[in-house]
Amino acid sequence: MRALVKATAAPGMALREVPVPKIGPTDVLIAVRKAGVCGTDQHIYRWDAWAQRRVVPPLVVGHEFMGVVAAVGQGVRSVQPGDRVSAEGHISCNYCFQCRTGQAHICEHVQIIGVDRDGAFAEYLAMPEFNVWKLDPAIPDEFAAVFDPLGNAVHTVMEAGVSGKMVVITGVGSIGLMAIPVARAAGAAAVIAIDVNAEKLALAQRLGADAVFDARDPQVVERVFALTNGDGADVLLEMSGSGQAINLGLAAVRNGGRAALLGIPSDDVQLNLAERIIFKGLTVLGINGRKMFETWYQTQALVKSGRIDLTPIITHVLPLAQFEEAFALMQQGKAAKIVLDVQGEGR
Amino acid sequence: MRALVKATAAPGMALREVPVPKIGPTDVLIAVRKAGVCGTDQHIYRWDAWAQRRVVPPLVVGHEFMGVVAAVGQGVRSVQPGDRVSAEGHISCNYCFQCRTGQAHICEHVQIIGVDRDGAFAEYLAMPEFNVWKLDPAIPDEFAAVFDPLGNAVHTVMEAGVSGKMVVITGVGSIGLMAIPVARAAGAAAVIAIDVNAEKLALAQRLGADAVFDARDPQVVERVFALTNGDGADVLLEMSGSGQAINLGLAAVRNGGRAALLGIPSDDVQLNLAERIIFKGLTVLGINGRKMFETWYQTQALVKSGRIDLTPIITHVLPLAQFEEAFALMQQGKAAKIVLDVQGEGR
Amino acid sequence: MRALVKATAAPGMALREVPVPKIGPTDVLIAVRKAGVCGTDQHIYRWDAWAQRRVVPPLVVGHEFMGVVAAVGQGVRSVQPGDRVSAEGHISCNYCFQCRTGQAHICEHVQIIGVDRDGAFAEYLAMPEFNVWKLDPAIPDEFAAVFDPLGNAVHTVMEAGVSGKMVVITGVGSIGLMAIPVARAAGAAAVIAIDVNAEKLALAQRLGADAVFDARDPQVVERVFALTNGDGADVLLEMSGSGQAINLGLAAVRNGGRAALLGIPSDDVQLNLAERIIFKGLTVLGINGRKMFETWYQTQALVKSGRIDLTPIITHVLPLAQFEEAFALMQQGKAAKIVLDVQGEGR
Amino acid sequence: MRALVKATAAPGMALREVPVPKIGPTDVLIAVRKAGVCGTDQHIYRWDAWAQRRVVPPLVVGHEFMGVVAAVGQGVRSVQPGDRVSAEGHISCNYCFQCRTGQAHICEHVQIIGVDRDGAFAEYLAMPEFNVWKLDPAIPDEFAAVFDPLGNAVHTVMEAGVSGKMVVITGVGSIGLMAIPVARAAGAAAVIAIDVNAEKLALAQRLGADAVFDARDPQVVERVFALTNGDGADVLLEMSGSGQAINLGLAAVRNGGRAALLGIPSDDVQLNLAERIIFKGLTVLGINGRKMFETWYQTQALVKSGRIDLTPIITHVLPLAQFEEAFALMQQGKAAKIVLDVQGEGR
Repeated sequence: MRALVKATAAPGMALREVPVPKIGPTDVLIAVRKAGVCGTDQHIYRWDAWAQRRVVPPLVVGHEFMGVVAAVGQGVRSVQPGDRVSAEGHISCNYCFQCRTGQAHICEHVQIIGVDRDGAFAEYLAMPEFNVWKLDPAIPDEFAAVFDPLGNAVHTVMEAGVSGKMVVITGVGSIGLMAIPVARAAGAAAVIAIDVNAEKLALAQRLGADAVFDARDPQVVERVFALTNGDGADVLLEMSGSGQAINLGLAAVRNGGRAALLGIPSDDVQLNLAERIIFKGLTVLGINGRKMFETWYQTQALVKSGRIDLTPIITHVLPLAQFEEAFALMQQGKAAKIVLDVQGEGR
Repeated sequence: MRALVKATAAPGMALREVPVPKIGPTDVLIAVRKAGVCGTDQHIYRWDAWAQRRVVPPLVVGHEFMGVVAAVGQGVRSVQPGDRVSAEGHISCNYCFQCRTGQAHICEHVQIIGVDRDGAFAEYLAMPEFNVWKLDPAIPDEFAAVFDPLGNAVHTVMEAGVSGKMVVITGVGSIGLMAIPVARAAGAAAVIAIDVNAEKLALAQRLGADAVFDARDPQVVERVFALTNGDGADVLLEMSGSGQAINLGLAAVRNGGRAALLGIPSDDVQLNLAERIIFKGLTVLGINGRKMFETWYQTQALVKSGRIDLTPIITHVLPLAQFEEAFALMQQGKAAKIVLDVQGEGR
Repeated sequence: MRALVKATAAPGMALREVPVPKIGPTDVLIAVRKAGVCGTDQHIYRWDAWAQRRVVPPLVVGHEFMGVVAAVGQGVRSVQPGDRVSAEGHISCNYCFQCRTGQAHICEHVQIIGVDRDGAFAEYLAMPEFNVWKLDPAIPDEFAAVFDPLGNAVHTVMEAGVSGKMVVITGVGSIGLMAIPVARAAGAAAVIAIDVNAEKLALAQRLGADAVFDARDPQVVERVFALTNGDGADVLLEMSGSGQAINLGLAAVRNGGRAALLGIPSDDVQLNLAERIIFKGLTVLGINGRKMFETWYQTQALVKSGRIDLTPIITHVLPLAQFEEAFALMQQGKAAKIVLDVQGEGR
Repeated sequence: MRALVKATAAPGMALREVPVPKIGPTDVLIAVRKAGVCGTDQHIYRWDAWAQRRVVPPLVVGHEFMGVVAAVGQGVRSVQPGDRVSAEGHISCNYCFQCRTGQAHICEHVQIIGVDRDGAFAEYLAMPEFNVWKLDPAIPDEFAAVFDPLGNAVHTVMEAGVSGKMVVITGVGSIGLMAIPVARAAGAAAVIAIDVNAEKLALAQRLGADAVFDARDPQVVERVFALTNGDGADVLLEMSGSGQAINLGLAAVRNGGRAALLGIPSDDVQLNLAERIIFKGLTVLGINGRKMFETWYQTQALVKSGRIDLTPIITHVLPLAQFEEAFALMQQGKAAKIVLDVQGEGR
């Protein structure tokens, strides 16, 4: 089969012929249709410090996808060939404390497809039945292909709790952008987006942000307070991973507010814990992955209700062979979310 | 001043001249502009068994209202004459366990205006400063006049938690109707309304209900399951107080779901606790009044965001003098919510 | 192997030779050492209305137990022969909404060992690996044999939340008795036990209840209020399943309190929902089984800490062959918890 | 009256004659009996950078105390002369968002007695009725005098949630020490204390810590994991304010655990947010003061139950005149908690 492979310990990727994966008795073989390109894939493409530490080539890359079940192991009961599916890409151990208590998304022994084992930029992919998510017929292919990052946004929004709340989002990359319609659909009274990229902020506004601010504006915290009766935002959704944005975001939250951190800082962050968290009585939540499978149910319910439209965010659908163009567009900041069309011609 | 008074221990009410109420050092005198008519007022009008037990005439009736501050006691700091205000009609003792732990809405010694002490169907009303709510300029008078029942709906919706959830509402009287746009604004993925009144169900649909069912349809529970992937609803908002509706509503909720009970049954209710609550692992919440003042902040934020439009629910605005017409319309089921225009001509 | 069997659709049980159960690739074969006798077993023994509806003979009875792993299927990774284990007796489907969202204890398709499929009063028992719980070496056999009902008590206490709270327990059968040391270990400030059985109440006191009351005392609610500064109890743990006790217990809880219902009423219960739940703003929780496996971790942590001593509750340890004596003792109310010694002589 | 006064903007304090404070209509005059000495008082005594920024001499110092009501304003209803009382020393504004939503402990406009206005090291103290706490007769004077710091410990423990949990405490100054019996009484399965002071760790053990570790031991995180089945602690209570301890404590918590931060770092803290909080899915809670008055009810209930004994922590009770000795003992690390006997001779 054709697959996009990190072939060697060097920058770049290559389209290669590799064997179709084998499945065990509790596995599912999926013919991939569409797959989203993530910042993580770009790290692996560029072969940066993180990728060098974590990834062992050769490896089929990609972890956001949807497709159709091609075959199932003998013990599989919940799906059958022909079913349209996506899947949770975090493969959990099932027997650690976290897995045994409904917290498999923070399993101590997690393996991620496309990072720790072969992934989704390929004609076929093998997944444990446990991880497979059967898609509702109402979900379009292109939206289903990005349930992984959309699920990150949903998980963050739902843990933060936004019903009737004033919400600040710091960082409107593709997940930060998705968080805007998600927060609105989940009941936010208002959404304020903060970033340094004017084009992304314009897109944020099209997606329903009630206000957008440039993070470099020295008055941005005051502006948030002015929009929130002088109290500060109820909720921060931190989607940037930038230390400066984290400090700014925490400053913009009211006493007793909640901050959900999804963006991953690459270095240590210096924090005034006393003023930003302790005296304020803040609740700060680390968010990782998607809850299995509460987040998937929530994501599907919100998309199916028609209240989330990802069309403006999925800026490109390219055939798999044009992967170089995809990485170039991302590198240049010209794309929000790119979906690869594994079997077809894109749009 | 003019006031609508329950003058004697008999059916009916009368428009009378009564003294303007006096205020103490921590009280606020409010010139009432508009006031909502509630089912409770109807009970007092009809002088039913509940009213005979609870109400001691003579009494100025009415508890839902908005107006303008006319005067303040010397110790009052948070409002001043001219401020547009509404107020929480449950006057709490401030020193019981509940009041001392942020649960003043379930104060053991609560007194309700228009029930236990003089109320809002009058040109002037005295309220403790603690109870007064300063209105955001963006809130129209007629909406502000019904923040009390709207707050009941918000309280119920927020305690139940509806973000991304499938919600069933049993009973679409005026509060049940309000709960539809509230639940949608608060993030419900879908809202199903159940009642026996076809007109109210039609109004429910206009207000955004995704499906409406006649409670007498013997298949109504199956219909809810059909709309919820066979799982049942995530959340029940019980707004009818009918024993049959409570049983039906609980049957329509999935294992592990939540039921918030606001409707007040007039008699004991027979429940199959084993099948309806215990085996299902349900969480059942009794809802009383509005949280002071979390619910008020939420109500104002949701209305201000423009996501809740009460226009279709406020079917009549009548001058105070036409109170007999108001009670007649309610009696005949021809009105959803009636607002009395205390100072003016109605619309 | 020897097994205690419900052989026919009639009262009684019989010790029989039956085949050792076969295991599949993801199953575990367990040599049972000790097994607790439950009220459910007694229902099956007596062949009452519930048992006639639910149980299909022939069936090996029993669901509370501990033993040693005798063999494992080829796919089993988390335990191995020789491991001391207990197991969750509720076998969940793994793929319904509840199972997929960390609520397997309320799986729509649950099967219970000893009720819906062969159980634990036997030399060997087959269980899915998912259900097996590896025992900490610090847990004595007899305590491990009753982790199922002890887990019911822990689940109820933990969902109710008792840290620093005044707790009322209605019904001190074996689970209600267990709930006393559990609630104390979990942080209850005081525990009040209510029942009609004077011997059980005396045992409740030995187990650490701060006060015990006869449920027939017409002043029992007032007595609870007198012990709780006139506020009422913070928490009710309902362990009796009696409609009268439920009404009494709810009356004894303060406004804003929590009630966790574990006891199973055999008939409908008549409730004054308005006064007991709605006006009070109560939270009522239906409790079923044990959370998989959060409750098991909590149970083990509490027992291992030495803060729960079940010795006074396990009144009898009898060899399996004396099962008739066990049922007679239970019938006469002369036992709290009886453990059957499957392999040995009892004590 | 006699009072301990920060007289000038320089190190030291002085015993002075000052006027008895006047009370308004909603205030209470309290004759102070006993008052605890806090680290904050020591900062003011030493006149360090924080004190120079915050405190404006002359000021009566002290904020932990108990006494007897001497007089009440005309509007006061909940206490009367002769009542034994303590009081919440954080005086909240009553009308900000936080005060109006049950979060007065994080009021934006809080004033603290003994810091922002006259305090408790004096024969008399004026307090708003709202802040006064009527003491249960079962609470000894010396324990009541330290309800403020004890309440900090209770607030931290209760927000973290410790029922059945493995708890790590970093920093066993007087509040960290108090947190040990509090966590045990609140249901912790085990408590592990970490500090650099061997004497404090020995005291921690006497107070019920199940294990104590020197924070400088390079294996301390591994040791916590060894005591928690390799999973890590469920809960961190951070009581030191040290950046190193915060990093160490977060490392010792399991994925999905909770960390409650009470200790105040004097500088920014450098944190590996990715590894310590985000990937772990941690919940981090900033804790400030005591919840009004939930924490006070919990504190009183736990002390009254007899499950918390502060005797080993209150190492000295000195007459007010020996305040210099008190500060010297604290400076030398020779005292856990010192109580000043305002009216008497100490013990």
